[in-house]
Amino acid sequence: MDPRISRVTLGVEDMKRSRAFYETLGWKASPQSNDDVTFFQAGGSIFGLYGRAGLADDANVEDTPSGFRGVALSYNARDRADVDAVLAEAVAAGAALVKEAEDAFWGGYSGYFADPDGHLWEVAHNPYWVIGEDGSMVLDPDA
Amino acid sequence: MDPRISRVTLGVEDMKRSRAFYETLGWKASPQSNDDVTFFQAGGSIFGLYGRAGLADDANVEDTPSGFRGVALSYNARDRADVDAVLAEAVAAGAALVKEAEDAFWGGYSGYFADPDGHLWEVAHNPYWVIGEDGSMVLDPDA
Repeated sequence: MDPRISRVTLGVEDMKRSRAFYETLGWKASPQSNDDVTFFQAGGSIFGLYGRAGLADDANVEDTPSGFRGVALSYNARDRADVDAVLAEAVAAGAALVKEAEDAFWGGYSGYFADPDGHLWEVAHNPYWVIGEDGSMVLDPDA
Repeated sequence: MDPRISRVTLGVEDMKRSRAFYETLGWKASPQSNDDVTFFQAGGSIFGLYGRAGLADDANVEDTPSGFRGVALSYNARDRADVDAVLAEAVAAGAALVKEAEDAFWGGYSGYFADPDGHLWEVAHNPYWVIGEDGSMVLDPDA
């Protein structure tokens, strides 16, 4: 199994609402999207929205209520001001501000928002990590 | 907010167990990893493991038990045989087989495993999507 994540799929209760949320953030839905699924190109991966019940069914698991999901997606911003700007942009688009950005013990600056279905996004600036021009992150450039 | 996912972080109960699971699949932990966090380079994104309680704390949310998380990561394989091989490899490494691979209504072939903490991975072959040599997926090459 090669080290890659081809797609991240979030289950959503209301496709129109969730699609509109990410589109308001400036993400462009692929023409391959339809009423049942929305795809966004996210770097070299695909970000997908799919009905929550349908995702449970597809995975052959029960659609029980979510507690803490134990999952966070992160958006690394290029500087601290951009962290604040992205959090504000998300809140303006309808996100819940889960944690205001603050200095993190690891030397960065980070906050969290939750999308309309409660999926967690960390927005962080990590001064030790470099974001490529194409948005990619490379941990150990010499490895 | 640019369309990118810098990092996907999964909360885990037992870092050694989870790190060993992904290493058994052939993923190479970054030297930046330590007892509290494990990072893997996954294409242009980072895949991270972090203590579940610590992740909840970092996000300022309660660490309640997970029901259906409403999240699935996908690994797109290059052909159908590779889907079966990756599912078998994951099970051999300690994953639970959640759904045997089967023909999907959308024309592909897909199954699911759950990692040691129950995080869902779909393993799929999609004959309509192309995987680049670097493992990236591009939805609409002409867009």
